[in-house]
Amino acid sequence: MTTLTSPTHDQATDPMGFTALESEVRSYSRAWPVVFDRAVGSTVFAEDGTEYLDFFAGAGSLNYGHNNPVLKKVLLDYLADDRMVHSLDMLTSARREFLQTFRSHILEPRGLDHKVVFPGPGGANAVEAALKLARKITGRESVVNFTNAFHGMTLGALSVTGNSMKRGGAGIPLVHATPMPYDDYFNGDVPDFQYFQRMLEDSGSGLNKPAAVIVETVQGEGGINAARAEWLRSLADLCKAHDILLVLDDIQMGCGRTGGFFSFEEAGIVPDIICLSKSISGYGLPMAIALVRPELDVWEPGEHNGTFRGFAPAFATASEAIRTYWSDDTLERAVRAKGLLVESHFNTVVSRYPDAGLVAKGRGLARGLQLPDGETAGRVTEEAFRRGLLVETSGPDGEVVKLLPPLTITEDELRRGLKILDEAFAVALG
Amino acid sequence: MTTLTSPTHDQATDPMGFTALESEVRSYSRAWPVVFDRAVGSTVFAEDGTEYLDFFAGAGSLNYGHNNPVLKKVLLDYLADDRMVHSLDMLTSARREFLQTFRSHILEPRGLDHKVVFPGPGGANAVEAALKLARKITGRESVVNFTNAFHGMTLGALSVTGNSMKRGGAGIPLVHATPMPYDDYFNGDVPDFQYFQRMLEDSGSGLNKPAAVIVETVQGEGGINAARAEWLRSLADLCKAHDILLVLDDIQMGCGRTGGFFSFEEAGIVPDIICLSKSISGYGLPMAIALVRPELDVWEPGEHNGTFRGFAPAFATASEAIRTYWSDDTLERAVRAKGLLVESHFNTVVSRYPDAGLVAKGRGLARGLQLPDGETAGRVTEEAFRRGLLVETSGPDGEVVKLLPPLTITEDELRRGLKILDEAFAVALG
Amino acid sequence: MTTLTSPTHDQATDPMGFTALESEVRSYSRAWPVVFDRAVGSTVFAEDGTEYLDFFAGAGSLNYGHNNPVLKKVLLDYLADDRMVHSLDMLTSARREFLQTFRSHILEPRGLDHKVVFPGPGGANAVEAALKLARKITGRESVVNFTNAFHGMTLGALSVTGNSMKRGGAGIPLVHATPMPYDDYFNGDVPDFQYFQRMLEDSGSGLNKPAAVIVETVQGEGGINAARAEWLRSLADLCKAHDILLVLDDIQMGCGRTGGFFSFEEAGIVPDIICLSKSISGYGLPMAIALVRPELDVWEPGEHNGTFRGFAPAFATASEAIRTYWSDDTLERAVRAKGLLVESHFNTVVSRYPDAGLVAKGRGLARGLQLPDGETAGRVTEEAFRRGLLVETSGPDGEVVKLLPPLTITEDELRRGLKILDEAFAVALG
Amino acid sequence: MTTLTSPTHDQATDPMGFTALESEVRSYSRAWPVVFDRAVGSTVFAEDGTEYLDFFAGAGSLNYGHNNPVLKKVLLDYLADDRMVHSLDMLTSARREFLQTFRSHILEPRGLDHKVVFPGPGGANAVEAALKLARKITGRESVVNFTNAFHGMTLGALSVTGNSMKRGGAGIPLVHATPMPYDDYFNGDVPDFQYFQRMLEDSGSGLNKPAAVIVETVQGEGGINAARAEWLRSLADLCKAHDILLVLDDIQMGCGRTGGFFSFEEAGIVPDIICLSKSISGYGLPMAIALVRPELDVWEPGEHNGTFRGFAPAFATASEAIRTYWSDDTLERAVRAKGLLVESHFNTVVSRYPDAGLVAKGRGLARGLQLPDGETAGRVTEEAFRRGLLVETSGPDGEVVKLLPPLTITEDELRRGLKILDEAFAVALG
Repeated sequence: MTTLTSPTHDQATDPMGFTALESEVRSYSRAWPVVFDRAVGSTVFAEDGTEYLDFFAGAGSLNYGHNNPVLKKVLLDYLADDRMVHSLDMLTSARREFLQTFRSHILEPRGLDHKVVFPGPGGANAVEAALKLARKITGRESVVNFTNAFHGMTLGALSVTGNSMKRGGAGIPLVHATPMPYDDYFNGDVPDFQYFQRMLEDSGSGLNKPAAVIVETVQGEGGINAARAEWLRSLADLCKAHDILLVLDDIQMGCGRTGGFFSFEEAGIVPDIICLSKSISGYGLPMAIALVRPELDVWEPGEHNGTFRGFAPAFATASEAIRTYWSDDTLERAVRAKGLLVESHFNTVVSRYPDAGLVAKGRGLARGLQLPDGETAGRVTEEAFRRGLLVETSGPDGEVVKLLPPLTITEDELRRGLKILDEAFAVALG
Repeated sequence: MTTLTSPTHDQATDPMGFTALESEVRSYSRAWPVVFDRAVGSTVFAEDGTEYLDFFAGAGSLNYGHNNPVLKKVLLDYLADDRMVHSLDMLTSARREFLQTFRSHILEPRGLDHKVVFPGPGGANAVEAALKLARKITGRESVVNFTNAFHGMTLGALSVTGNSMKRGGAGIPLVHATPMPYDDYFNGDVPDFQYFQRMLEDSGSGLNKPAAVIVETVQGEGGINAARAEWLRSLADLCKAHDILLVLDDIQMGCGRTGGFFSFEEAGIVPDIICLSKSISGYGLPMAIALVRPELDVWEPGEHNGTFRGFAPAFATASEAIRTYWSDDTLERAVRAKGLLVESHFNTVVSRYPDAGLVAKGRGLARGLQLPDGETAGRVTEEAFRRGLLVETSGPDGEVVKLLPPLTITEDELRRGLKILDEAFAVALG
Repeated sequence: MTTLTSPTHDQATDPMGFTALESEVRSYSRAWPVVFDRAVGSTVFAEDGTEYLDFFAGAGSLNYGHNNPVLKKVLLDYLADDRMVHSLDMLTSARREFLQTFRSHILEPRGLDHKVVFPGPGGANAVEAALKLARKITGRESVVNFTNAFHGMTLGALSVTGNSMKRGGAGIPLVHATPMPYDDYFNGDVPDFQYFQRMLEDSGSGLNKPAAVIVETVQGEGGINAARAEWLRSLADLCKAHDILLVLDDIQMGCGRTGGFFSFEEAGIVPDIICLSKSISGYGLPMAIALVRPELDVWEPGEHNGTFRGFAPAFATASEAIRTYWSDDTLERAVRAKGLLVESHFNTVVSRYPDAGLVAKGRGLARGLQLPDGETAGRVTEEAFRRGLLVETSGPDGEVVKLLPPLTITEDELRRGLKILDEAFAVALG
Repeated sequence: MTTLTSPTHDQATDPMGFTALESEVRSYSRAWPVVFDRAVGSTVFAEDGTEYLDFFAGAGSLNYGHNNPVLKKVLLDYLADDRMVHSLDMLTSARREFLQTFRSHILEPRGLDHKVVFPGPGGANAVEAALKLARKITGRESVVNFTNAFHGMTLGALSVTGNSMKRGGAGIPLVHATPMPYDDYFNGDVPDFQYFQRMLEDSGSGLNKPAAVIVETVQGEGGINAARAEWLRSLADLCKAHDILLVLDDIQMGCGRTGGFFSFEEAGIVPDIICLSKSISGYGLPMAIALVRPELDVWEPGEHNGTFRGFAPAFATASEAIRTYWSDDTLERAVRAKGLLVESHFNTVVSRYPDAGLVAKGRGLARGLQLPDGETAGRVTEEAFRRGLLVETSGPDGEVVKLLPPLTITEDELRRGLKILDEAFAVALG
């Protein structure tokens, strides 16, 4: 079985004889060389009928599970009735429903009055729109990002992303961004923002004053690094003190992944611009939004646009997902409880291998177990796959086994998956 | 009624009382202040039941019409059966079906052996991927684009786009691109590529040698400027002679818009990289691909990726659309015939107003009528909307009335729309 | 004898055994492998006593000849009296003398009221200062330069220079500049500024609106390309019409090289910013100035500075040179006469070799003869050197034999040099 | 009396009635509104005969004093004999003498085998050449600089300079450089290079891998911040470990300013590229060199050049200065002794005002006294000037009184100047 980093393909990786039609850039299909066909809830079925438990959830795009029946009904009805599918930014009944539901169920209860931008279908579109708007508002070009950030693969988003392999793919020098140390980058040895704050206050530091800071509350691709609430609050204060916009990329960690709808709720901060995508449609449909404080909504009509910024079936499922899961705190409490279950389990794993240097990481149902190195972590996910569990790695060297199960996973499924992981750890660390 | 350029919203533009929830960046909803709800074929229905004939087709994303029944059935079945919806670049049966169908029905019959990249859900993702790859292959940074080009709104795509308002939205200087005159930019007064060729051949010209040229065969947003086949051939020859990659952005003009599946077929050229999106799914579902000559597929696994690069329902409808419309040349011939009908009609319009400086433009079913200025053209689309026709303008000053009806539009519908346009021309030019 | 492009050094190129101490970047010492020691007027003496007639004049830095006795006296007195040598931008009596002399003898008689910037000791400093100021004034980043321009080797100056080898030396992509065709780039086939003007007027052209245009009246390094007066006037008009600053780089062509003190006088234009260096001190001493229209002098104190911006002995010789040569039009008339002598002679050379494709170029005492290729031109300068004449080549491929004799050269010396050149042409073209 | 930051000029600042001819960018002439005329050793004479003791020395360009008689004789002889003045990179006897003297007296005794580049007349030319070469060698674009660095005002040099006012003057975003904390930036609270090293070792940090690090051993403009020898050694080790070139900018601190000829000698490191200018000619004549390890001398002939790169009289005085002052360690020992005298005196000043937060800084004869703020420090230099002492401030807010007296200053002069400073401190801090 190949790993994600092997560039070759052959019979072993292409038992189906069709992968040669696709570019070598494909990656998941190398780690999981089976053809998937159907999926329900937390279970994915390969073409040959093999079942896989899903601790991956479309990299956080399937928070409510695969083909969630409540949303499925709404989607099928919507399509069956010949409702508008493609609408750019025309007014549609589906768009109105989404805007009103999002306001009444999400924004207003949280005291937010942000306006909604439909920037295009993917998370990178939201990031690109956020950076463009922040630059337009401030008249500055530079952006501060954080070590091990991931914000997307289009040029603007890539320039604030940390991973050197992905950065190298740009083919041009990535400029206008300066990385600052994320929370706990130095293991707590230095005061928060020591470096960043000093650079901002020193007019001779050589740091171009940034238009914005872009941050994730938990770095998913970066290795499930969870920032502390007080770090996020200090960051928000620092931005305010220096008249810098705070862009919060909640693409992977929003929509309940850490408990609350927004992952920054716990910290009690109000970002200037918020990026959402992945699970916002609730059904894995391409959709993204950026939320902007009303006084920052200085765009000209059409100054940012995109063909798929009004994919209406996604608005329909998004509205239903919000009504179903965010009318009360049932899901939020369940996520926290299941998150603690994983945390507790991972703590026992860490204790089980006292010399392996394992580290349990994360918040809510974004969880990671850091292995000694990427090879060992890769061994874990390989063994897990062999045992019917889909789980991937993240972190700069792929050294973190990363759990992003559907938020709707049952406790039984969760325990079953953790048991498989235990076996995989035993093989990899044995 | 407001125009696209009015930044204000008030009762007149927001009769429904919900547009204030959305950013001022919205544009189409200003020109067409009704709430759309359903759509079938070439007809869109507002919530109040008013019917609109669609000469817009989702900016070219609905070549096969709204909620095409053949594709609808495939889509509903796919979803009803709980098939995989979100798959990144995992292997799925839907992906295999698309790859194999695309090869057998599209690539092979045209003698192409390109490999398929799934770069993300929108056209800009395909452009970003193409530029990244071209730079990686050549080790050069610069790209040559053309006057009045449109390639998308993410930073990399925007840097090769011409429109100054949209460029200004970037908030940073857009560099690494040099615009060259598109075909007929000087009304035929100068030899093709006089400037570009001289700059390439003169080692003292100061032009950074480009990694790639990116071009549209017909510039849709730029004003329905159709390049001649011999111009495209000369461009391809020039690229080859100077070891520059040719990236063809067929996002709006591909999938049959000009007749053949690819808009460059007529010219007999083979681009190094081809970008497709908009109508590739056939149903308005977000999907994009980039096609790469196999020897240029030098990517590392995962060097470019994206969350919604494997939206499987779109693969299902895309496969069915290809089977249905590209198994023979029925559609292609129909598009050419309907295109000629529009051309002929526009020629009579031009003759009808001999002093108005009208120009009929376009190829296939991408057609434009150039009015004296953007205000007049805006008047035309406004009057058309009042009479139940959706049609937009393009061009640097919005001076071109742009027709992109569904390719499946009936001749009756087409004539009905042209009749409405005639009335609108009469009002605007009268 | 080596050519300028040979990167190796060995006994043949280093008969003196010390060139190995210096970087391989050295160039003139490869073409002229003798050790020069003394120089007077138009004659340079090698260490072994060999005399060379100088048609090179320090690349235009010695317009008044080597060690001009009038200036020499002033310089020796200045130094002997322990006058200030190094002064940054402190007030000195030498600075006052220069400013007042420059105003009374140069600016006022020409109706100019520009203010003087001392940007540093070399021409590139003047160019860097000009570009910085133009960007500050306009708030735009982009600059338009011309094909085959040469403005210097520091990063800002290099970005507006055409030569691809020199550009490549930057090691980073050179951006923020777009080259436009210089006068006669297409052999008169197209209207002046056809391309540039169209790009400026078309809001969809994709050309970033420039802060400034930077131009030479005669491109020295570019191959002695002399722009016509009407082209320069049209350029000035175009800049004015589009609110673009006109930066005139008169570093090589100013100080009388083409006749008038400024090379743009003939065209009757008034540039916004003028760069001078090379012969401004009159004695080969490092000095540069930028002249700025008073309303554009928006700099903060110290916003641009430099250690050697107040090299006072250069101010002393500059003042004396201006008094001596620019109190009347004697020099100007002599330059024009000697220029015509060369022009006439070159015309006979062109006629002598009717099939060689020779082209006589230039204005005033900036003259060039374009040979079929760089190799032939190199042969000419090699043969000339062998016969005691220092003359270099320029142009993108080094195909132009470039004459920049001291303006004070005698007619006899001039004829003697032309005779040597005739012999060299005979060898190279024979 | 105006301060350096006042942009206006009026009778008070222009008693001589000629400053209006010069751009507002002038700065020193605002702080010292007298016309200087002559200078000998450490004394400068205004036109009216007033004497000023010079603790400024041309910002470090006059290490051997004004019009040093030994060098003056050489210079006058050179000029009187009509030796070559302007030579580009032609071979001259003066160039040979310099190269051989520099090798025998400076490089060889220190075990260095660097090759000499003549990059142009000023320090910024040396920095530009160094950065270009480092990028060419490594194929990387990014450079790491340090907080409060100063490397020059041309675009490449400015991009690695810290001062925000000066950076703002560029008019374009300064990119390709990332500032790292200089020694003691956090008052010793964090391990050296904690941030930089972690960023280099973390492949997900988002730091573009640098071609080079550029560093000063003592930051003169930055506020006389002296790096510790062990910090410099660790930096050199870090560079070596990560295959990054070390560029040492010794423009202000070289030529004996800190004791040894090179300021890095004490640290025992061997930089890959060394920049020298300011006092290299010994007489305030414009001259700069870059020293390059021989295996890094990969330049093509002419790939970097410049008109005033061969100002031969500067070679003559430079050779004589080296012979006179660097044939033994007399000067070096004297500098150290005089440096300690200042240090000791400043320590007593610090003790004298225990609540003022004064800090004594520096090494050798580069000394600073940090005042509470820029206003107070400005008051000190103003009072000093009133009492006949030329001394300036530096640091991001001009808060450091900066002493750069000629190295040849007598102990009496030094004590006299310190006494004046004491009076000025008393006024400013009283």
